[in-house]
Order: sequence, then C-alpha cells, then structure tokens
Amino acid sequence: MDGTAMQIMVTNDDGIGAPGIKALADALAELGDVTVVAPDRERSATGHSLTLHAPLRVFELRQGWFAVDGTPTDCVNMGLHSLLPSPPDLVVSGINHGSNMGDDVTYSGTVAAAMEANLMGIPSLAVSLATYGATEYFPDAAKIALQVCRAMIRQGLPADTFLNLNIPNLPFAEIKTPLITRQGKRSFVGKIVDKIDPRGRKYYWIGSEEPSFIDDEGTDYNAVGKGHPSLTPLHLDLTNHRALEALKQWQLA
Amino acid sequence: MDGTAMQIMVTNDDGIGAPGIKALADALAELGDVTVVAPDRERSATGHSLTLHAPLRVFELRQGWFAVDGTPTDCVNMGLHSLLPSPPDLVVSGINHGSNMGDDVTYSGTVAAAMEANLMGIPSLAVSLATYGATEYFPDAAKIALQVCRAMIRQGLPADTFLNLNIPNLPFAEIKTPLITRQGKRSFVGKIVDKIDPRGRKYYWIGSEEPSFIDDEGTDYNAVGKGHPSLTPLHLDLTNHRALEALKQWQLA
Amino acid sequence: MDGTAMQIMVTNDDGIGAPGIKALADALAELGDVTVVAPDRERSATGHSLTLHAPLRVFELRQGWFAVDGTPTDCVNMGLHSLLPSPPDLVVSGINHGSNMGDDVTYSGTVAAAMEANLMGIPSLAVSLATYGATEYFPDAAKIALQVCRAMIRQGLPADTFLNLNIPNLPFAEIKTPLITRQGKRSFVGKIVDKIDPRGRKYYWIGSEEPSFIDDEGTDYNAVGKGHPSLTPLHLDLTNHRALEALKQWQLA
Amino acid sequence: MDGTAMQIMVTNDDGIGAPGIKALADALAELGDVTVVAPDRERSATGHSLTLHAPLRVFELRQGWFAVDGTPTDCVNMGLHSLLPSPPDLVVSGINHGSNMGDDVTYSGTVAAAMEANLMGIPSLAVSLATYGATEYFPDAAKIALQVCRAMIRQGLPADTFLNLNIPNLPFAEIKTPLITRQGKRSFVGKIVDKIDPRGRKYYWIGSEEPSFIDDEGTDYNAVGKGHPSLTPLHLDLTNHRALEALKQWQLA
Repeated sequence: MDGTAMQIMVTNDDGIGAPGIKALADALAELGDVTVVAPDRERSATGHSLTLHAPLRVFELRQGWFAVDGTPTDCVNMGLHSLLPSPPDLVVSGINHGSNMGDDVTYSGTVAAAMEANLMGIPSLAVSLATYGATEYFPDAAKIALQVCRAMIRQGLPADTFLNLNIPNLPFAEIKTPLITRQGKRSFVGKIVDKIDPRGRKYYWIGSEEPSFIDDEGTDYNAVGKGHPSLTPLHLDLTNHRALEALKQWQLA
Repeated sequence: MDGTAMQIMVTNDDGIGAPGIKALADALAELGDVTVVAPDRERSATGHSLTLHAPLRVFELRQGWFAVDGTPTDCVNMGLHSLLPSPPDLVVSGINHGSNMGDDVTYSGTVAAAMEANLMGIPSLAVSLATYGATEYFPDAAKIALQVCRAMIRQGLPADTFLNLNIPNLPFAEIKTPLITRQGKRSFVGKIVDKIDPRGRKYYWIGSEEPSFIDDEGTDYNAVGKGHPSLTPLHLDLTNHRALEALKQWQLA
Repeated sequence: MDGTAMQIMVTNDDGIGAPGIKALADALAELGDVTVVAPDRERSATGHSLTLHAPLRVFELRQGWFAVDGTPTDCVNMGLHSLLPSPPDLVVSGINHGSNMGDDVTYSGTVAAAMEANLMGIPSLAVSLATYGATEYFPDAAKIALQVCRAMIRQGLPADTFLNLNIPNLPFAEIKTPLITRQGKRSFVGKIVDKIDPRGRKYYWIGSEEPSFIDDEGTDYNAVGKGHPSLTPLHLDLTNHRALEALKQWQLA
Repeated sequence: MDGTAMQIMVTNDDGIGAPGIKALADALAELGDVTVVAPDRERSATGHSLTLHAPLRVFELRQGWFAVDGTPTDCVNMGLHSLLPSPPDLVVSGINHGSNMGDDVTYSGTVAAAMEANLMGIPSLAVSLATYGATEYFPDAAKIALQVCRAMIRQGLPADTFLNLNIPNLPFAEIKTPLITRQGKRSFVGKIVDKIDPRGRKYYWIGSEEPSFIDDEGTDYNAVGKGHPSLTPLHLDLTNHRALEALKQWQLA
C-alpha cells in the first residue's frame, strides 16, 4: 500500500440483489475502493463452474456494481480481465446465506470464486453466514469479515492459500473470537423426490436436508457450533498425500 | 463379490452421445453389469455443481442408458438414488475428451462425478484422455481404465480416496506403465474476448488456451508428458494443512 | 364498474426493471388498482410462447410487483390464475422499447401477452414506443396508452378483438391524434453472422437490421411515420379467408 | 422445376430425434433432396420465437441432418441463410406429435416455422398428427403430407399464404379426403398447479388439459373429428378487419 486506495472486488453466488453482498460491500468500503461483480441471479451450488460454451453479458446497475449472467467463477474472470481498471488487491466472496463447511465447500459457488482468484494470484476470502433461516445479522458478519481482511492485509497469506470464513448467526456482541480450523466432514444423506408434471411426465428433484456434520474438535463445523467464526486455510490441491504410498504398492498392468 | 454380477455406473461430462463414454462402457462390461447415467448434452467445466433450483428429466435412450438434463453430479445422484436397482459397487466417469490435471481438476465435471460418488461412499474413478484434438484412442484408453478398475477391486481404495486417471493419447501398445502422481500446478493465463452482437450490444467470452503446466517430477502432468498414464489419489479435503500454524499466529479481533 | 376499483394487470417483454413498464404502471394507476406481473429479465422476440416443460418461480419485489422467470405469456397465466385476487378487468402489456408493427407482431412477446389475455376473455392492449435508440418519451407514450384505455372502457371492444398500439417517439405535445390502422407488411431482410469462439468452435448469430416496411396508406407503419399513434384491432384468427376458394379447387388425393 | 432436383427443408418442434420428422423426411425424399434442420431437443409451445440475445450452435449429426440449439424459427433462419447451399423450394415442418388447430396455432413452434419460411418468401406447410397418445401412424400421416406437397407444387400457393395441415390419427386406408378449413376456436380452460420444492420454496406449473374446441362446421377441428385431414390456408395478418369500422367511431383523444 503506497497511499493509493486499495482495490477490492466483491462477488457472491446468491446474486447481486442479495442482502449479504450489500452488507459486505458496505463494510469493505472502509478498506478501499470496492467494485462489485456478481451474478444477476442466484447461482447456488454451482461449484467451480466456468461458462465456456456461451458468451456472457454485463449490466452496470449503478456506479461500480456489475451484474453478469454467469457463475461466481465467471464473475471473477470478468472482473479481473475486463471490468476493473487494474487487478484488485483482494477478492472477497459472500456473504453467503448459509454455511459452506465440510465437504460442502466443493459445491459452493462462494468458495469457488475465492478459489478462482487464488488461481489468478489474488489474495481471496469466502464468507458465509451459518443459517438457512431468515436473518438480520449480515452487517454483524460483515464486521467479522472486515477484521479478517485487515489481518490478511497486515500478515499476508501463506503460500498457495485462500481463506474460507464461516460466521455464526449471532449479533456481533455475542460472536466469540475466530478459530483457525480444518475442513470437517459431512454425514451425507441425499434423496431424490419424484413427481408427475401437469402433462403427465415424470420429473425428479434433488432434495436436501439441513446438512449434518461429524462434530470433530478442530473442524469448521465444531467452531461455528460453539459460537466462534471458523477460518479455514484452503488450497487447490485435492491430492490425498497420505494415500500415495498405498497406491504405489498396486499392481497396475 | 459373491458370485452375483458387479454393478457399475458410468457417467461423463461430454454428454451421453460422446465416443469416450461408449468406449468406457464397452470395456467395463467385462467386469459386470454397466448402467450409463449421463448428461443429455455437453456439460464441460461445470465443476461440482448440483441442480437444486429446478427439476430434472430422465430419458431412457435404450436398455441401461439414461440421459439426464443435468450435470455429472446430478447424474450420480439420480443413478444412486433413483435409477439403479441398488447402489453400484463402482462409479466410473469419462472418458473425458481432454485431460483433467493440475488445478484444472477443480473445474472438471468428470472429476466432480467421481467426487460425488466418493461423498456417497461408493468407490470411484475419473478417466480422461489427454488430447483436445481429434482422436481414435478412446478404446485404447478404456483398456487402461479397465486395468485400473481391476486393481481397485483387488486392492480396495485407501480411506477417503477417489482416483483421477489421465491417459496419454497413444495406441495401447505405446502407452507405458501407469505412475502414481500428485496433482500438478497450472501456469495460469486467462483472457476475455469481447465483441459486439448483431444488435450492437457487447458480449464477452471467456477464452482458453491449451493449458500449460509447471513440469515438476511426480506430478500428473509430468507423467502424461512422458507417455505414462497418471493415477492420482484425490480427496475432498481442501484444507491447506501446512498453512494452519501460520494462521494461528494471526491477530484476528 | 360499480364503484369498486378497476383491477388492471400490467406486463411486458423487456423485463420488470425496464423503464417502459414503470411509466405504464404509473399512468394506469389513475384508472384503478395496478398489479405488475412481468418477466424477471428481457424476453424479447419470444412470440406466443408458453413454458410447459419446466416450473416457474415468482418473486414479489415489492407490493403489487411480481417478477416471474418466464415469458410474457407465462406472466398472463400466472397473474390470472394465481397472483391476482380476482381476474383483472384489463391487461395492458408494454411499453415496449421498439415498435411492434407489420409482420413483426407475430414475434412480439408484448403482443403475445395481450393475445393470451384475449384468449382468456380479458380486454387487452399491447403498447410499443417506436424507437430502438435511447428515449425519454415513455411517460409521454404512457399518456396516450391511458387515453386508449379510457376509450376501451367507455366503448367496449368489438368481439374477438384485442388492440395493438404503436406510438411515435415524440414529446406528448407533438404526438398527433391516433389513427385506426391495419397491420402492415415488412420488407424482410434477414442475415446470419457466423464467428469462431475462443475454443475454435463455430457459432452463429441471427442478425437484424432496423426493420423496414412497405409504406402503404392505412397501415400501422404509415401512421407512425407521420407522427400518429397507430391503433390496430387484432384477433387470433390466422386464416387467410381470401385463399379458401382457391384451395378448394385443388386436387388433393 | 427444370430437371435439377427440388430442394426441400424439413424442420419441427419436437426435436430432431422425434419419430414424426423421420417419417416426414423419408416421405418427402420422393420429391427431391431433403435437408433436415431441426431443434436439438423438444421446443414445444415456443410460438414464433427467435433467439436474438444468444448465439446458436449447429451439429451435423449425419449427412443432411443438422441439429440447432434453438427454436424452429431459428432453424428456418439457419437453414435458409447458412446451412443449405441455396434457398429451398419448399419448407415443411412436422410431423408434430399432437394437433395444432384453433387458437393453439398461435403457440405452435411447428406452425411458426412455416410462418417464418413464408416471411422469407418460401412456400411452406406445417403438418401435425392429431393425437397426444402413443401412435404408430406417422408414416401414414407422412403420405398425406406428400400428397399435399404435390398439390402445392402443381397448383402454386395463393398470395400471402402458408398451409396448416392436421391429420387424424388413423391408418392411411381409413383417412378420408382432405378438407379445406378455417381456423377454429378453443374453449379455453387454463390452470396453474402450485407446489413446494424440496428446499421449501414454492413453484408453479402451467397445466394443460387436452384442449377442447367449439365444433363448428368448416373448422379444422370439425374436419379432423370426422376423420378428414384439415388443410387451412394461413397468413401473417392478425388484423381483425371486421373491427376496423367500429374502432373508427371511438373518441380517442
């Protein structure tokens, strides 16, 4: 930082009209110039998905707020390569309405946006508020996100790392100190609902309960359950390094 | 295995009409009963994306071949929860036309399908052929996939592991022995093309060159470059465990 | 009308955020209670198209303003069968940004919405402003629409008739008296633009010039060209009655 | 016709894989060279809708069979302006699975394709088989379509006319002689079904019964009900000419 304003890009997967992104952009304005580049409508559970087969459209809704008819990952591409005057110093994604913890981070468009920024060499953070119900605590969560951003700027991220922040659904005064965590595990129960449409044709709907997790000490889920924000360092390496040796014993041909 | 036939589910992200899935299903028929549940059209770069906001349709094209108007992840859900008579013993995804190596595995619908099966407790493998050009080597690659499946069945997968197999674009006789690898790193260059449509409105297209990778020994990319199939054990844990200690020193509130 | 307020439904095909629908809803509030049920984004050139293969979602943006993720025809169905407390006395569609004259009425989502209301027995009017450029004359056009609505209410529509109103792009004071017209004819020139996407695959784009029309006396196009609003009575009968006799001479079997 | 083969373009709205288009293309091969340009999947009830906001893709499935990811109207544009070596002598759309009679012709993608060809100056015919159930009579209906095409070629179409053919669902031997008809009227009953998705959000589905019609002598519906193919001359003029005089009495400003 040399006196010129810090450039911050904000995106999400709930869509540019969601209350979480408003609260986040407002809070981060304390740090520098905020540009919002976000999907024009909800894009939940889109994972790290990139629109390659079709073009994208951009609508500047108002000064510094761009809606894109694509995924959060598309938005990061559009922001970095086209819409911002120079690459941002920081990309922050959220605040998602609902947690992104455990194995669910792999589905998350919110986390994928931070992943994409990391791929492009920009420090990044995904922020989620841990409730699926109605909530008025986005501004409270945004204060926590601001604290984490200040720490990121002050300390610098470790190599090959982007951050995943999950915040309990509480008023700011009741939120405890953040804990550094590892990604937990979900106890998975999926289901499919099948029905008949008005023309007599069958259709299917992927169901979902509130996710339930294995409550291990040190995980994201455990921290949030106790009222702490959970901050998890993530990377793009999916290799299960502990399994490498076992596989090397296999007879393969 | 107790004498009853093994149940195998096959899916992909290039769409049910692609030559790669035909070659794979044909080869795996040697192992047991194959059911294909795959997207009705190309769904590349969809990542681990799940269709929650809309219903899905299923079309049984012929005995044991189901087309779904969703993503590869949707297909795994449909197969396991609705279309197969019982959960499969094995889920195999591919053969993708194009490699899925390095950071690109996070975008891959092919890999996401194997990830989803792993989440549901089913052993799984993603298979890709490392070329973007025209190729006639899908049947050759399918033979390699069959060998890897036999090894999976014989040895059993390590805990919390699914597999990512990338195969050089060569005739079977010229393919070397498979190597066990870790996920490599891409040297990322993205770009956006912008143009004007016939009505005078601007549109954008996310560009992509042939990906280029850092050629480190021991990586997926390095193995394939030398003519070896690359077999990488993956898991769902994105935690950068090496970064945990550094973050614990941060002043966060 | 018996003293209770008239119920008016407003829709369009430019999307619920377009300036034309705002001007129209504001003007019609003089006549009674206005409920807006309109597409969540632009749906131009969708013709009389109905979403039967997929479900629809409704978002109440604010009191009496409903966005639907469907076509204008879908919106009329949703309004009449679900969203309004009772069937409306009048359905008005527009104000479209761009004329809907001549053969182009068959493509128009704006006109299709009025057509759908007519099918359901509700008096209806489609309104378009005859310019493709930037304009500030939507409120001026809305005043003309209000005059036509007053006449519809006063006189009653002829049997099997709905109305198509095209308004010159002028300040209210310069707009001449409305003329009753017949649908003109377009002198059609189409074209296709073909290009190559960033992955080297060909794509096509249907082009369009500003439409040009045959300038016959008595047509919609002729009236608007002279500065008059054009009001055309339409019906759903596509039969070319003059051709019936000629066809009856054909030897068909 | 001067000894060179007649060029015929065939399209539909049920999708290029539907049995009706196969039967039609087979039958018309007796008349000349048939090129199929049809939607890659079902596009029912799309009306006269044109894809202007997004590009189109074309896949040549086999020699002379092109799938387009657009509407029937898009297919006619693609065929005439890009895919066929020269403009066709005839465009035939169908055979639709289900009738297109009465007011329903305005929703029909099958009829819209013939309408689009007419706009471009090419003689055209829409063909529908009057059943919503399973049927094996597409080849029988295709013979009737061939007879009508022969008559079109022999006699020439009246000015500003395209044709709409509806065929009873009967074996060829039981189909009576075709009747020249006018478009009938539907007795309209619509409905909306509303439900709750697995995440607790409401969705709506536009329902449809088997359409019922007013059984007037001389209409399409009446002819088909008595076992006759119905051939209706259509045009693009939606003007209700009988209403013009009444409207001219209105006090408008």
